[in-house]
Amino acid sequence: MTETAHPETTHPETTITADPDLPTIHIVREFEAAPEAVFRAHTDPELVRRWLGPRMLTMHIERWDAQTGGAYRYVHTEDDGTAHGFYGSFHEVRPHGRIVQTFTYAGFPDGVCLETATFEDLGGRTRLHILSVFETTEGRDAAISSGMESGVVEGYEQLDELLARG
Amino acid sequence: MTETAHPETTHPETTITADPDLPTIHIVREFEAAPEAVFRAHTDPELVRRWLGPRMLTMHIERWDAQTGGAYRYVHTEDDGTAHGFYGSFHEVRPHGRIVQTFTYAGFPDGVCLETATFEDLGGRTRLHILSVFETTEGRDAAISSGMESGVVEGYEQLDELLARG
Repeated sequence: MTETAHPETTHPETTITADPDLPTIHIVREFEAAPEAVFRAHTDPELVRRWLGPRMLTMHIERWDAQTGGAYRYVHTEDDGTAHGFYGSFHEVRPHGRIVQTFTYAGFPDGVCLETATFEDLGGRTRLHILSVFETTEGRDAAISSGMESGVVEGYEQLDELLARG
Repeated sequence: MTETAHPETTHPETTITADPDLPTIHIVREFEAAPEAVFRAHTDPELVRRWLGPRMLTMHIERWDAQTGGAYRYVHTEDDGTAHGFYGSFHEVRPHGRIVQTFTYAGFPDGVCLETATFEDLGGRTRLHILSVFETTEGRDAAISSGMESGVVEGYEQLDELLARG
């Protein structure tokens, strides 16, 4: 990978696909770092808070116990002080290959999503797969309409930058 | 509800439905007890171990931390010593109305199910709804083929008996 002076032009593509037959979303994204590093950026809260979510939000982590049977809770705050809470459980954390977690936006606690992250080793590089399963197709479509895509893309751009410093 | 000398003939029906369009299973079952009692039978491990699963299995609970962000792990053992482990997380425990948890059979750790239990108050009686969401329709069908139904029905019959004892 050639680093350039304009990293914003070199970010790999993030593919986000809504399944036509199932209430799921697939995300695929490659990173210029080994699975161990990409995995650690998902489990170490000091790293997570530096990349997860849109650039304009500040992340405050209340809990990030990234082990099987653990849980997490964090707040994303906008410049004007508006706060958005999120929480869930770590169903399984399997170093350095797989993380299964639940996800809920605290503003709509009845909506729960099950997310499986898989860290595919491309030989010093990593292909990250995220499968998000919703209870209904309407819930899946509402997540997409909420602006999830820009948050995911911007978060992964911040993760590129974190890994490049790494 | 009139108690009789033959409680095995009076158990309410357990309805188990596979959705034709989604990778889900719906279970509906009524109980002759208030939501608080049915809920407590799902959160107190001393009660859970007396009813969950088929009659022929012995349940050993290693962890049952039924609170939001908690987790559980247990082993069901057959008479011949064959052991089956299960584990998951409690995404949300909302007294006395709702429990959202993940579920995995340890023998197949890649299979994860998201289960939402809702305790509907019928006025001293309870209608329990379980919505189980799988990642794929094949995973859902495999769960049904595994003999899940008899375990669920027998478990709820044991729960009837536990609730009747007060």
